[in-house]
Amino acid sequence: MMSTRLTGAFAPAVTPFKPDLSPDLERFATHCHWLQQQGAGLAVFGTNSEANSLTVSERVMLLDHLIGQGLDASRILPGTGCCALPDTVELSHQATLHGCAGVLMLPPFFYKGVSDDGLFDYYTEVIERVAMDNLRVFLYHIPAFSGVPISLNLIERLASRFPQQIAGVKDSSGDWANLEAMLTSFPQLSIFPASESLLSRALPLGAAGCISATININPAAISAMCANWRAPDAAKAQASLDTIRQIIQKYPMIAALKWTIAHYRDDQQWQRQRPPLRALSEQQQSELQALLSAAGFAMPGLEAS
Amino acid sequence: MMSTRLTGAFAPAVTPFKPDLSPDLERFATHCHWLQQQGAGLAVFGTNSEANSLTVSERVMLLDHLIGQGLDASRILPGTGCCALPDTVELSHQATLHGCAGVLMLPPFFYKGVSDDGLFDYYTEVIERVAMDNLRVFLYHIPAFSGVPISLNLIERLASRFPQQIAGVKDSSGDWANLEAMLTSFPQLSIFPASESLLSRALPLGAAGCISATININPAAISAMCANWRAPDAAKAQASLDTIRQIIQKYPMIAALKWTIAHYRDDQQWQRQRPPLRALSEQQQSELQALLSAAGFAMPGLEAS
Repeated sequence: MMSTRLTGAFAPAVTPFKPDLSPDLERFATHCHWLQQQGAGLAVFGTNSEANSLTVSERVMLLDHLIGQGLDASRILPGTGCCALPDTVELSHQATLHGCAGVLMLPPFFYKGVSDDGLFDYYTEVIERVAMDNLRVFLYHIPAFSGVPISLNLIERLASRFPQQIAGVKDSSGDWANLEAMLTSFPQLSIFPASESLLSRALPLGAAGCISATININPAAISAMCANWRAPDAAKAQASLDTIRQIIQKYPMIAALKWTIAHYRDDQQWQRQRPPLRALSEQQQSELQALLSAAGFAMPGLEAS
Repeated sequence: MMSTRLTGAFAPAVTPFKPDLSPDLERFATHCHWLQQQGAGLAVFGTNSEANSLTVSERVMLLDHLIGQGLDASRILPGTGCCALPDTVELSHQATLHGCAGVLMLPPFFYKGVSDDGLFDYYTEVIERVAMDNLRVFLYHIPAFSGVPISLNLIERLASRFPQQIAGVKDSSGDWANLEAMLTSFPQLSIFPASESLLSRALPLGAAGCISATININPAAISAMCANWRAPDAAKAQASLDTIRQIIQKYPMIAALKWTIAHYRDDQQWQRQRPPLRALSEQQQSELQALLSAAGFAMPGLEAS
């Protein structure tokens, strides 16, 4: 089982918007091409993609466009978890038809305090309604946003009931003890922490890589760390990743990522977000620019994409 | 202004599902007819309607069906707030076209810690995109579920910017001080607490009525209390409402409402919920039945609907 697990660094690719706030298909594909060229996989429609600000039909259109533009579906892991069961089924079905590596599935996140039995019912309904052998589900544990945790007990029950379809977990809890428990309890699954800062601790315990916001701007170095964590200079590489992440984390994440892309592409269109999210203030932009410059940050290969 | 405010008891009408978990149009219309006959308005697609387990197209279909079946649009207040701006615009536009009393609008509820500026942008975009003079927006403050509070400051800013469109607030915080501040600060708005238990305190301060889950099963008495709170026997009426609410509140709310309707209609189809929500256990059902019987609870007029 281990050798067929999905591994690597997957970027929750940020989603550009046009002046009318519609998704910008062209810039999205350009960014995703660059990420794949730099060695990263694509966890499109993640939290940092503003996925939950997109309609179902917008997500369908964006994924169709990426596939049409020749992106490698076997390295795409779209977010498909919505509040409404039929929406989750539709998006998961589309991704699986396209041959995507899997789907990253939020639990339904409006109703709080729901039982593991209820969540088990929900995931069961989705898997049975998609009804495709090549569906691979990655459960998405992000309690600070969803308010609906994915417990170890729920993972255990779902992995036992659907050993073929339940392929992994993204742990965005930021709780090391929880990540360690997942890694220990489910060696057959691909467990992805949500930050590259955990790689040097998590990869030796069997983590599959990471799905991290900052892969949007630092894809080559983070991907290399996932592959080369046993190398002699790994500690130095980890420190270098941490430096960039700590700078970005001083600001609202999506706004900071979009500013960085806008700046290094010299394309201010990239800064736009859908309400209720907002771009960085002028002062934040200046500060961030100074910090990244001082750290010697660069985004190589943009001209080629 | 006061005389044109929307007032009364509005039920977040529960949504019945067929065995395949699709919405049951016929039972939904039957329930809504009964609620209107009993004097209640219809806050369809509320939290207790499982609205956030419905797709946009299912909500469109259900509202079209109610209007087609002759329900009074001027007493319908559909929930239209979604995570994605275009979904909120679509639902709000449809409701306004149908001549609904207004729309009850959740803030976008996935991203947490968003600024009042960002929420102001969001509501502004929705109102400007719907672009209809008869749009009436009721802001929905339900922080325990949305994780995104509607602050007094935000209400003030929106009401100043859109004095015609911002028509009211539903306060589901359960925080009396917050409700009192809303009532004091915004006498021109229709402020609805989320429980009939607050009516005897809130109506004298100018509350417009209530939008409460239990109106689904106790519509006539709660509607009467909204109209007759100055009557000599109002304290007794309030106590009677409280008795029923306290019984229902011992259980998961939606499941308890659906069980009650299923039991008094002798129609077990009504118990079904969409995952991740679940029906009451057998033991809970027996307990609830005993408690309601002991309280002399009845649902009059079901045979006529």
